[in-house]
Amino acid sequence: MYVIIVYDVSVERVNKVKSYLRQHLNWVQNSVFEGEITDSKLRELKNGLNSIIKKEKDNVIIYISKSDKFLLRETIGIDKSDTSNIL
Amino acid sequence: MYVIIVYDVSVERVNKVKSYLRQHLNWVQNSVFEGEITDSKLRELKNGLNSIIKKEKDNVIIYISKSDKFLLRETIGIDKSDTSNIL
Repeated sequence: MYVIIVYDVSVERVNKVKSYLRQHLNWVQNSVFEGEITDSKLRELKNGLNSIIKKEKDNVIIYISKSDKFLLRETIGIDKSDTSNIL
Repeated sequence: MYVIIVYDVSVERVNKVKSYLRQHLNWVQNSVFEGEITDSKLRELKNGLNSIIKKEKDNVIIYISKSDKFLLRETIGIDKSDTSNIL
């Protein structure tokens, strides 16, 4: 499956969330990650996020698509993703 | 079609982008909007964004799904969307 994860967390937890997600997905923008992931990895990832964030203050949205074939992706402006930094 | 729009724009253009997108879509988090939109409205919206942002500095990603049926959506933590503020 393919996931897009967007988060809005308090500043003191931003880096923790970012480095955690970076282990599993590709960073594409400010507070957005995406990538191919298995069912079990996604479950693990949700548990991980649950233990990092404060549920009464932070918000994480996970969009799940069966495949990236069902998702079209268009970018306007400069590419801020990890990949573009490498290339 | 169903779209998710995430943006990372300079602080001086954030409010402009936000109020523009708010006219067409639902605000769900920090710099994330989503909603049902027609083909022609999406074209209009892309033109609008193109005229607001600076392409050499800002980044907007549009994820397009034929239908929201192909997209599962899970939330961890508090709901920060417009809807939750209304309810």
